[in-house]
Amino acid sequence: MKNFKLTISYDGTRYNGWQRQGNTKNTIQEKIESVLSVLFQKKIEIQGSGRTDAGTHAIAQIANFKIETELDKIEIRQYLNHYLPEDIVVTNIEEVDLRFHSRLSAKEKCYLYRLHIGEIPPVFTRRYVYTFPCSLDMNKMQQAAEVLLGKHDFRGFSSEKRKKKSTTREIYSVDINAIGDEIQFIFRGNGFLFHMVRILTGTLIEIGAKEMETEQILKILDTKNRTFAGRTLPARGLTLVSVKYD
Amino acid sequence: MKNFKLTISYDGTRYNGWQRQGNTKNTIQEKIESVLSVLFQKKIEIQGSGRTDAGTHAIAQIANFKIETELDKIEIRQYLNHYLPEDIVVTNIEEVDLRFHSRLSAKEKCYLYRLHIGEIPPVFTRRYVYTFPCSLDMNKMQQAAEVLLGKHDFRGFSSEKRKKKSTTREIYSVDINAIGDEIQFIFRGNGFLFHMVRILTGTLIEIGAKEMETEQILKILDTKNRTFAGRTLPARGLTLVSVKYD
Repeated sequence: MKNFKLTISYDGTRYNGWQRQGNTKNTIQEKIESVLSVLFQKKIEIQGSGRTDAGTHAIAQIANFKIETELDKIEIRQYLNHYLPEDIVVTNIEEVDLRFHSRLSAKEKCYLYRLHIGEIPPVFTRRYVYTFPCSLDMNKMQQAAEVLLGKHDFRGFSSEKRKKKSTTREIYSVDINAIGDEIQFIFRGNGFLFHMVRILTGTLIEIGAKEMETEQILKILDTKNRTFAGRTLPARGLTLVSVKYD
Repeated sequence: MKNFKLTISYDGTRYNGWQRQGNTKNTIQEKIESVLSVLFQKKIEIQGSGRTDAGTHAIAQIANFKIETELDKIEIRQYLNHYLPEDIVVTNIEEVDLRFHSRLSAKEKCYLYRLHIGEIPPVFTRRYVYTFPCSLDMNKMQQAAEVLLGKHDFRGFSSEKRKKKSTTREIYSVDINAIGDEIQFIFRGNGFLFHMVRILTGTLIEIGAKEMETEQILKILDTKNRTFAGRTLPARGLTLVSVKYD
């Protein structure tokens, strides 16, 4: 038995997110599984490091699957890239320890949210940015981001409906960089809740636009009340950058 | 009568090039003209600075049109961007002298050809680069590029069929930059023939891959024989960067 770890890059624009679930068609997981199932002539299920929303992208999503095979990693990667659509690419494949599990073994995730500041969406990056017409106060956003650091119950910054699941996560860093007409928000943490990065960024830009006070962050953490946070920004601006393991 | 100069950015992937001609449908010129024709309630024709091939992109194509109107430039730009598809954007509009003609007044054009060096097309820039699997000798390509500078008959580097048209052009500069996994070829000149940038780049990469000697450039210029030059690279890697006027 071999355990293969895949690194996958995708443009999520055309897909209903990463995860195959129920009747949801056209997911990235399903596309990869169907190519592997043809290759190995049996039903293959892969395990992703976590879901990404419909329309969200990944530079390096991680997934793994186990199989009894004589094929080596290069042959599998070439077969996948030959039959996958051009907006899904397997950039790397490694044979790993049988105990490796892409979700349970993950130690850190990094997400990027890209904002284009302007009236008109930029032609060449239009699928990967959210266009926002107002300039933002970088200092105010950076101050607010510092309040988010550390271990907190982030339920107020999520669309999580299930009451029993833990909504405590640790954020290691939030970097906010202005590059030309673009502002990039980079979040690192041990995990992120459903819609959390999109709501965190939505809250930070309300603070940057001076529609909300920095103190509101504490109130959202304290009350865990979603209605106090900013809006959920569109999925298109969000990219899963990397997943780290020991 | 007013003369409006439009600056237009487009992702050419879905289009049959810039120019409306005969039965060719789905051109960028046609898309813009049809929006303007609805706005002004009459048939509007715009004049582009030159054609771009099917699948080729533009950061700043220039076009102009004349009209008797009370509308100001901001209103026209907003109307255009509201009704144009998201892969065509009017980034600027200016009212210019009535003698301004986007093609005849043009003094310099700049084109970019983007090569991705690797086995697998990159997901996020796949529409804008040509993926090439071999590493290239930058020095050899730079030496060869120098031979191209100046005023020459570039017929051997074009797909121009008409014998009577002048095929003499002047190249002001060729810059070749390696940026990560990408090599960018930037050509500036007073004008470029049909397919010329794609054939010039195709020739330079054959020299960079050591499949052709630098001296071959002189032979192509001398004989004006297309068959001695490199192949015509795909349109997707080509972008019209800018058009300069006095």
